[in-house]
Amino acid sequence: MYNPAPMTSHFAFELQASDGRARAGRFHTPHGVIETPVFAPVGTQAAVKALTPAQLEELGVSLVLANTYHLYLRPGPDIVAGAGGLHEFMGWPGPILTDSGGFQVFSLADRRRIDDDGVTFRSHLDGSEHRFTPERAIAVQQQLGADIIMAFDECPAPDDRAYNEQAMARTHAWAERCLAAKTNDQQALFGIVQGGIFPDLRQQSADFISTLGTPGVAIGGLSVGESKPEMYTMLDVLSPRLPADRPRYLMGVGAVDDLVEAVWRGVDIFDCVLPTRLARNDAAMTRLGRLNLRNATFASDRKPIDPACDCYTCRHFSRSYVRHLIVAGEILAATLLSIHNLTTLVTLAADLRQAILEGRLETMVAEFRRNYAKHRPVEV
Amino acid sequence: MYNPAPMTSHFAFELQASDGRARAGRFHTPHGVIETPVFAPVGTQAAVKALTPAQLEELGVSLVLANTYHLYLRPGPDIVAGAGGLHEFMGWPGPILTDSGGFQVFSLADRRRIDDDGVTFRSHLDGSEHRFTPERAIAVQQQLGADIIMAFDECPAPDDRAYNEQAMARTHAWAERCLAAKTNDQQALFGIVQGGIFPDLRQQSADFISTLGTPGVAIGGLSVGESKPEMYTMLDVLSPRLPADRPRYLMGVGAVDDLVEAVWRGVDIFDCVLPTRLARNDAAMTRLGRLNLRNATFASDRKPIDPACDCYTCRHFSRSYVRHLIVAGEILAATLLSIHNLTTLVTLAADLRQAILEGRLETMVAEFRRNYAKHRPVEV
Repeated sequence: MYNPAPMTSHFAFELQASDGRARAGRFHTPHGVIETPVFAPVGTQAAVKALTPAQLEELGVSLVLANTYHLYLRPGPDIVAGAGGLHEFMGWPGPILTDSGGFQVFSLADRRRIDDDGVTFRSHLDGSEHRFTPERAIAVQQQLGADIIMAFDECPAPDDRAYNEQAMARTHAWAERCLAAKTNDQQALFGIVQGGIFPDLRQQSADFISTLGTPGVAIGGLSVGESKPEMYTMLDVLSPRLPADRPRYLMGVGAVDDLVEAVWRGVDIFDCVLPTRLARNDAAMTRLGRLNLRNATFASDRKPIDPACDCYTCRHFSRSYVRHLIVAGEILAATLLSIHNLTTLVTLAADLRQAILEGRLETMVAEFRRNYAKHRPVEV
Repeated sequence: MYNPAPMTSHFAFELQASDGRARAGRFHTPHGVIETPVFAPVGTQAAVKALTPAQLEELGVSLVLANTYHLYLRPGPDIVAGAGGLHEFMGWPGPILTDSGGFQVFSLADRRRIDDDGVTFRSHLDGSEHRFTPERAIAVQQQLGADIIMAFDECPAPDDRAYNEQAMARTHAWAERCLAAKTNDQQALFGIVQGGIFPDLRQQSADFISTLGTPGVAIGGLSVGESKPEMYTMLDVLSPRLPADRPRYLMGVGAVDDLVEAVWRGVDIFDCVLPTRLARNDAAMTRLGRLNLRNATFASDRKPIDPACDCYTCRHFSRSYVRHLIVAGEILAATLLSIHNLTTLVTLAADLRQAILEGRLETMVAEFRRNYAKHRPVEV
């Protein structure tokens, strides 16, 4: 087993307060402090779709995610490294997190072959053949230069017991190889817990990954097709077994209710394409539910998207105008809805953090559950 | 003939300085002062494509144009009026100009029938039949509520003498009807000079429109297929015949060299879709010429798009990154290039203004002509 190095001061995690299982903390990185709980928007191709870094900063984003698989294929890690790394390349001065490429590669289905050493796959862009191993995934992430990088893991369908046992074993072996391969102490490598929807596998995986001593632990293999109760049950299982002194990152989760339920169960970091993807599909996220702004009922509605929201979009534009932009096919619709949706998640995480610091999370969560269920205005 | 009303103080034009035929001025509107020469971006559907009003304001835009034809069809003038007018609807607090809808309607070719009273046309959206007359064009523009509105004119092909004679006569008759129909003194109605590429027609039209006493005069029917020398010759013809104490608006012009040549010939206001359309087609405008950022030569180019430019895009991003966004199909490419291209025109107009105020326009124009011709890097 890999002998964990002492956590460098670059990546100290201060646990500021706990409230039940929920936590408020500060995670230090070379590009700034991340106050947790935190939601990170996804810049798949080194750009959060339809938004400038200035807009992200203005709406309160502190951490941005980028996808190693996509950047490896285009523009290629040499170009990003030549620019001085992702921060310089994409003009984002704050903390950045990259995934390992594993999730995307395994999503390629019939375009990839897995063995114990790694994965051979064909590019979705041009069919060219490539190979990722744990070592290669780390090397590419070192070239990209994010603050937080991920171990190369295998993410199976959540309900296939046999496959989850096998994938978990591989994920553990690969995590050790990733740690051994990593050479840059300006990057924090997080191990990833797998195990599908099987409590005993999740426990085993949490125990194993915890022993690696990584400066944070990611929870993979959720929000990939299982039900919400199944996901929440897995978080209930994991919460007491993950190291209390490291941030916990729930990968790919970004629905409003899931954010609340996962913070309630001790998660600190989130990312998801959902807010920006919904924005490009005309949907607004609020704490009361979702609105489909293409709906004709909004044609003359002069209210802001969310009267409770203080984002740039809600301060300046009506539902009527946003609907017009959608119907007219204007790019600005995606921009304004992305600003609003990201603001919803970023401020929700910040408000949950404040409630934890003030010991009133239970009240906030109870109120949220009541309103989110009751007032859901229009489902999309 | 219509008896011109005295110009209201809402729309005073201060001529601050002249340098040769070029002029520097300040045009007062109910939503703020426009310093001229000025370039106005086009928000065809009440949105400048891919940009927020905040981004427009940050890059120095003072005047925005919107298209009556498009807004009449969608969302419809009732919705805009119900929102309190275009300023409220689109979240742009500064001056707004609307065209009359004429240019777009006449561009519909086989979808429209012209008579001396007006134009019947079919919507490009759903084929529904509509009719614009001078009175209707003014009524719709009054509902939209822009600061500067345009007379309903007929814009023929520039080189058809017979048609230009006929269209000019109609344009003049319609201008009088527009003035008679206008009731809102919070809006300035500009008459439009037509006459194709025929100096005598242009002179006749300038003389006629000048007698109407409108608070500004627009030059229509240029930048519609004629050559650049033909356009410049028409401006040479018009310059001495237009009222010196009113702003002159050259409709639909926005190429970098045309802006310089037209300011040199006494034009004060410009609008064009070119900078934002080029941006969505991967092209950057500079004072040295255009760059096609999709070009592979920029793949690892860490320089800004224009090292002489101080816009948000050039301060934060490399040619390499912008090319990556283009190749990857990211919306952000259009946003960043639109910011840059509009900045190029807005700051060029501001620099020309400063040169006029300081009496050194001839030097600036001579230098521009030398560099724009010589260094044009990549034509697109």
